[in-house]
This record gives sequence, structure tokens and C-alpha cells, in this order.
Amino acid sequence: MSNQDLTIDQITAVCKRRGFIYPGSEIYGGFGNSYTYGPLGSQLKKNIKDLWWKTFVQDRDDMVGVDGDIILHPKTWHASGHVAGFNDPLVECTETNKRFRADHIIEEQTGIDPEGLPLDEMTKIIQEKGVVSPATKKPTLGPVRKFSQMFSTKMAKTSDDGDDVAYLRPETAQAIFLEFKNVIDTTRVKVPFGIGQIGKAFRNEITPGNFIFRRLEFEQMEIEYFIAPPEGFNENREKFMDKEKGLDAWPTESREYLLEIFNAWLNAQKDWCDQIGLDPDKCHLKEHAPEKLSHYSLKTIDIEFDFPFGRKELYGCAYRTDFDLSQHEEFSGKKLKYRDPQTNEEYIPHVIEPTWGVDRSILAVLCSAYDEEDLEDGTSRTVMRFKPEVAPVKIAVLPLMKKDGLPEKAKEIQDQLKVFGNVEYDDGGAIGKRYRRQDEVGTPVCITVDYESLEDDAVTVRDRDTMEQERIDINKLNDYLGQKYF
Amino acid sequence: MSNQDLTIDQITAVCKRRGFIYPGSEIYGGFGNSYTYGPLGSQLKKNIKDLWWKTFVQDRDDMVGVDGDIILHPKTWHASGHVAGFNDPLVECTETNKRFRADHIIEEQTGIDPEGLPLDEMTKIIQEKGVVSPATKKPTLGPVRKFSQMFSTKMAKTSDDGDDVAYLRPETAQAIFLEFKNVIDTTRVKVPFGIGQIGKAFRNEITPGNFIFRRLEFEQMEIEYFIAPPEGFNENREKFMDKEKGLDAWPTESREYLLEIFNAWLNAQKDWCDQIGLDPDKCHLKEHAPEKLSHYSLKTIDIEFDFPFGRKELYGCAYRTDFDLSQHEEFSGKKLKYRDPQTNEEYIPHVIEPTWGVDRSILAVLCSAYDEEDLEDGTSRTVMRFKPEVAPVKIAVLPLMKKDGLPEKAKEIQDQLKVFGNVEYDDGGAIGKRYRRQDEVGTPVCITVDYESLEDDAVTVRDRDTMEQERIDINKLNDYLGQKYF
Repeated sequence: MSNQDLTIDQITAVCKRRGFIYPGSEIYGGFGNSYTYGPLGSQLKKNIKDLWWKTFVQDRDDMVGVDGDIILHPKTWHASGHVAGFNDPLVECTETNKRFRADHIIEEQTGIDPEGLPLDEMTKIIQEKGVVSPATKKPTLGPVRKFSQMFSTKMAKTSDDGDDVAYLRPETAQAIFLEFKNVIDTTRVKVPFGIGQIGKAFRNEITPGNFIFRRLEFEQMEIEYFIAPPEGFNENREKFMDKEKGLDAWPTESREYLLEIFNAWLNAQKDWCDQIGLDPDKCHLKEHAPEKLSHYSLKTIDIEFDFPFGRKELYGCAYRTDFDLSQHEEFSGKKLKYRDPQTNEEYIPHVIEPTWGVDRSILAVLCSAYDEEDLEDGTSRTVMRFKPEVAPVKIAVLPLMKKDGLPEKAKEIQDQLKVFGNVEYDDGGAIGKRYRRQDEVGTPVCITVDYESLEDDAVTVRDRDTMEQERIDINKLNDYLGQKYF
Repeated sequence: MSNQDLTIDQITAVCKRRGFIYPGSEIYGGFGNSYTYGPLGSQLKKNIKDLWWKTFVQDRDDMVGVDGDIILHPKTWHASGHVAGFNDPLVECTETNKRFRADHIIEEQTGIDPEGLPLDEMTKIIQEKGVVSPATKKPTLGPVRKFSQMFSTKMAKTSDDGDDVAYLRPETAQAIFLEFKNVIDTTRVKVPFGIGQIGKAFRNEITPGNFIFRRLEFEQMEIEYFIAPPEGFNENREKFMDKEKGLDAWPTESREYLLEIFNAWLNAQKDWCDQIGLDPDKCHLKEHAPEKLSHYSLKTIDIEFDFPFGRKELYGCAYRTDFDLSQHEEFSGKKLKYRDPQTNEEYIPHVIEPTWGVDRSILAVLCSAYDEEDLEDGTSRTVMRFKPEVAPVKIAVLPLMKKDGLPEKAKEIQDQLKVFGNVEYDDGGAIGKRYRRQDEVGTPVCITVDYESLEDDAVTVRDRDTMEQERIDINKLNDYLGQKYF
């Protein structure tokens, strides 16, 4: 089949059937678009996160990592603007207590785009146009009100001012900004440098969906890359911050300086798409129009991906100016400036933020890898064409028969190959069926141990994609696989 | 110095100074015993988690992994007993709104141990004995009330019954039990087998403390290992479940069956302590007395560690019987039985649960590794004697001078060594000072590139612990380091 016709139901089905991803809390009927990564999914997720950490944190001299908390000091979210601005317009059905996005149902039922309208205007539209509750199909909707997208909770221990409200972080970025000062004070980094982090974030959305694409609880891989301010920025802040004109209004030199770093990160993100095996035809750049930019950003380019349900944001690269560090300096009263060791100049660094969703990466990898192939013998197979780097099972070792010392030999080989990662042993059923089982979970290589193996100390190596088989000496196996696959 | 005299302040200081662990939300004055793993700490944490996953999930044929959500269906916590039973007795100071553990301040101020007393009895003691508020030093305390140790939050999207309360998981275990059915339905596991998971859990405690030992937000590495019920258990449930007598009341055969599996896991946990380099003299087993067992457990043995603030729980191994799966079967109405493929017998498996705290592992590793050494030349050094497996920096490459092609040569070598993990390049300051800097963060090997290196293509390899230096050819360097360290 053409992978272009792939549906999200096909992906969801294979994910459940083979233990990649299960509906969360399923025995209780599910909960809030929750999902659990199963045996294969948790390994796939780990492989992607490990590869990211190695590529962007461990192997780069200009990067360090941190691992911060989900519950941060609440002032963090006042400074970042989330307490004031991170809200959805919600409406509740007075009969069923079910809640809906007011803007969505207004647009669906009236064709009016209410974006940016005050809440009481939306309430008026609902009343005057007879917008009905999707739950009752009757006009049983209450007034439109603000609902924070941040999950809040209460601490047992109150703060000095007696307050006990705290929030689950809606983005990982702020946990990095909070540590900027500690990192420059205790390590030997010099601007430009970046801080990377992998971790969960939470958004209390009312309309999650599209499988793992939009979740209440999701994982991010994020970098805040700190650079010297563009020349002239602090002297002509108003001119430089003009969102409508953007960087076009800047002096050439300042613009080129900024774009060089910005584009280097955007290119690193594009390279990453190749690294994890995303279909290049499905990846597209999209620059945010000025009116769609987040409050902190002067320039954002998304990498979008053609998911089965449409072209949607996969990754983003944003120029956050000095917004976050300036806000935290103001709200905390702590100096968050960097002193250049050469020039002695002091400044709040500007920030380029490339960000990656972990769950979306997994979904894009699955959608890129999934294939159904008609074979010459008239049968067909489902095959996940994972890159070896991300494949959850690297190698399967299959004894031809479950007797005569073949399982023991196969287990020895399994042990010998564990340096490559997750190596599965499978002795159940006909060999052809076992190959198909491994194809469907994307195992790049199958090693078959047969009676001859006991004589010649060699095994049959089968390639997932070509299905070609080669006879390899066991003592040369690791070299062979290391060179060809891992 | 003797590592026995180590104080938690020494550990905290070096952690902050060298970027292992920072106080969380520090620019806002800190928050709820929050901490951030810095550049070295986040790598140390990752190394420990990776080693655990490889040891217990990836490399074992009887184990699979999952990765579940922090916010699970609320019924999970009704079934597990946490909604009803996971509470602290709290008392609030009516003057300052500060909250305290009622049992703790009663015991401190009156010597009475109020464990197990009803709340109104505790209130009575406070009133009659004149227990004062630690905030005001006056009798300004209100009545004692239950406060859940579970963080709760509200969902934007209400459930079918209009409820919107949800909880942050107080343990990772239940996310595994919820997936038991999916795992047996979609993978080829056979009892006995285990499911492992690494993830965060949250406890809304009022008295966290001892650095990262007790935190509101912490990470667990946990295994639920499913086994067939001990012979006779289901027929004589009451006799088998007698907590007071414990397994002593069981028939010999059933007891030996259970203890064999239990002890195998306990031994695996002891081996793990060696694997990550914990001081064996500081590790001790402690069996829970019958009255101290959790409601779900018939037998629990902790591995305790001699932290600078005393001997405290590090890891635990618990026999949870069939409590959890039975509860979930009852509360969900879904069948959670396993059918033995050989005997066709159907049963709810019993569970052995070995559990590891990530943060406590890190603290125990730091306490085991920390050393201050007097050297022959009269100076002293701080050295972290990390095992190479967990060391956050594996190798440091140091050009003797910052010129004449030495940095370029050193960078080449750094690239060549990145297969071993995190390799640092450091060209700042005198070579002796750079060695000390690496000693303090526990880098096992320093490689010095000098003028001779440009001639003979060899480098000086310095061992952290012996401080001995050896000259090694660059083209033999990877083999040498691979054999000796990694």
C-alpha cells in the first residue's frame, strides 16, 4: 500500500495489538486521553530520548543538561505570563455538567470566529444564536468563563504568605530559565551555550485527541540556547520588538547574526528528523504569522508533519528574545545577567528555543515506519521500517527447533549480542510466522540458529527490509552487525 | 578523612558548587524541598536509570517495561486503598495558617506516641497538654484533621458522572497493575514474569527534608513480578494472610516456593548496590515487623543505608500477595486472571515488588563516593570515587597548552572517545588544577595531550584513584580504556 493512505486507526490498532501503546486506565474505561507506553513503546520512547540526549547534550561542548521539577515555585508562572494568559474559554452544560470549548462550538454552530472576543461577548453569541450543548442538543449552556490550562494543586505545607496553590508545569522551558544563574555560577559555560532538558509537562485541555498527538500529560525535549543580544537591541528595544515587521525592521548585521544561530538550530532539528527516520516528504516548515506568535516570541518556525489526520505541528524553533530571563529578574529580584569574560560587558542573554515533543516524535516515527507490503508469493506483510537506532527490538534470535541444543545455542548468541541493546529470543511457532512477527514490530535483523549452526558455528542473518538472508560466522557476527546496522 | 564522618552539609555543598544538584526554584527562595539536577547530576541520574533499565528490563527475558501516566483514573486510588488510607494527621496554626504533623509535635512536646489514635483524641491531647504551635510558641493550634498525602487536581474535562477530581500518583506501582491485562493479552510473557517502570511519583508531605532523601516529587524504579499463587493459598486464605504469624504459619513447601523468588529479588537488589558502587559497610537489611507492614504486604525487607543523618530506607522488597490485582478486578469489574497455558488453571497472580528510589540511589552513590584524601606532598584533594558505569563525566581530555595545535589534537581525541559516553574537553588553567577539578566530579580518567603527542601519537592517561600515569598510543586508546574502565 501507499503509506499516504495510512489512517490513525491502523496505527492505533497495531500499537495496541503489539504492545507499543495502550489506552491508559483502560480497565476503568480510560481517562482524559491517557495512554501507557507498553513493552515495545517504552523502549522506543527511551531510544528516542537517549538519542536526543546524546546528540544535543552529551556530545556537544556548548550544551549542558538539567532535570528539574514538575511543581515549581508558583511565582514562576506569574513571571512567565501563564497565570494571566494561559486560559481557554469554557462553557458548562447546566444539565449534564459537561464542559466544552466555547470558541469551538460557537465556530462549529454559527460560523463566527470568536478568537480574541471577550468572554461576555461569547456568552451573548451563544444566547442570541441559540448555540446548543453538544450533550443535550438543547440550549442548556451556562456563561462562558476562563479556565486555566494549568493543572493546579494544593500543597500540604503553606508558604510564608500562607498560600498553598501550586501548578504542574505547562512547559519544561521555565525549569531551565530558573537554573540559568546556577548554571553560569557553577559550571564553566560561556555564552553562547545551551541548557537541555527532557521531562513531562501538563496541559488541562478539554479537547485532547488524535491518539497521542494532543495529551494532557506529555513529554518534551527542550533546549534554551543563550546568546549575546543582537547589536542595537537594548538601545532600540521598541523598534526591534515590533512584532508586525519582525526582523525585517532590524539592521542587516543584527538580523544576520540572529538568523545564523536560529537557522543552525532549525537545521539541527531537520537533521534530527532524518536521524529518527521521519519520511522527508511529510516534513514541512511553517513560519508563524506575526499575529500568531506567542507573547514571548519574535520569530517562530514550526516543523510540521503530515499525520494521518492532517498537517500538524511536530517541532518548533522560537526566538524568545530576553523575555523570560527579564521577567524572572523582575519577579524574583535576583540579577540574571551574564558578564562576558572578555569584554566585561553585562547583559541578559537572548534565547533561541528549539523544542521537540517526545510523544509526537513517536507518532511521527510510527507513521513514517508503517508499511504494508505485497510479496512475490502473493502474501503480504506488515513491516515497521524503523531505523536501527530507534528500533525497540534490535535483533531477534530464533532457534529453528525448540530442541536438540538449538535453544541453548540461540541463548548464547542472544547474550553475545546484548551489547547492541534489546535482543529478543523467540522459539514459538513456524519460522516464517516468527519473521512476520518481528517485521511487524520493526526488528531490523533476525538471526536463525539451525542444525548446521551446531556444526559450522554460523547462523543465518535475515534483513527486515530486503528479506535477504546471509550466512555469517558466529565469531564475526558482532562486527558484521555493528558495521551494517548499529 | 574517614568517610564515616561525612556530613550532609558537605554533600549538599559539593553538589551545589559543582552542579550536581541545585536547590529548586532558588531565585524565588526555594519551594517545598524542591531540587534540580544540574549538568552533572542530570547525567549521573540518567546513568543510574539507564543501568537499571538495561539490567532489569532490557537484558532479562522474564521482564518487560512500561511507561505510564502520572494522572491515572481516580478509581485506581480507591481500589489501591490510597484515597481511604493515605493520610497524615495535620494541625493548622490558627494565627499563622502554618501546618504541622500533629503526631510529630505531640510526640516532641509530650513524649506520648499518638500513632493509631483517632483524630479527636489527638486534638484532646493538644488541648489538655498545652501543645504549642511551633510558629507562635503559643497554644494557637486548631483541631487535628486528616490531610491526604496525595496531591489532587481538577480536570477541565469532567467524567461521565460529572466528577473532575484527579490525583498525582503517589507510587508508580499502580500504573503497572492497570496494564497487567494488556501486557498478558498482547505480548508472549508467561508467569512468572515482571513489568518494570521508571517514573515520578508525588507525596504531599508536610515535613520533607534531608536534602534529596525525602521529597514531594521523586522518581522510582519499580518492578511488579507476577508469580503463581503459593500452593494452598486460595483454599486457606485466612490462615495464609495472618500478618502476625506471617509466612511461618504456611506449609513448608509453599513458604519455600515464595521465599525462593523473594530472596532472588532481594539478592538482585543487593547486587545492584555493588553495581552502582555503594559502600557495602553502609548497606543493611531490615525486615518489617508485622505491625509495621503496609496494608497490602505479608512480608517486606528493606535495604537500609547509613546516610549522614542516620540509617534510613534505601530500597524495599515487598510481597504484595494478590491484593492489588484483586482490588482492581473488584473495582473495575474486569477479569484480571491469568490462564496457565500448560495446566489451563486460572488465577490472579501474586506479586513480589522490588522497588528502588532514584533520588535516594543518587544520594547513596554520592555518600559512598565522596572522599577527602591527604596526599604525600602535604596537599589534599576531594575525590568522588564513582564507579565508571555511573560517573557523569567518563573521560576528560586536557591539552597541556591552549596553542600550537594541542587543542585541535585534543578535540580529535575527544571525538574518538565519545563512544564511551560523556567526554569533557578542558583547557582552562594549570594541569594540576584541572586534575583536581576532574577528581572532585569523579571523572575516572584524564587524558593529557602534550607536545610529544604531536610527535609520537601517544597520550598520558591518568587514573583518578591511583593518580598513576601511563603513556598510551592514541590508536590503542579505545581498547585500553574499554578494557580497563568501561
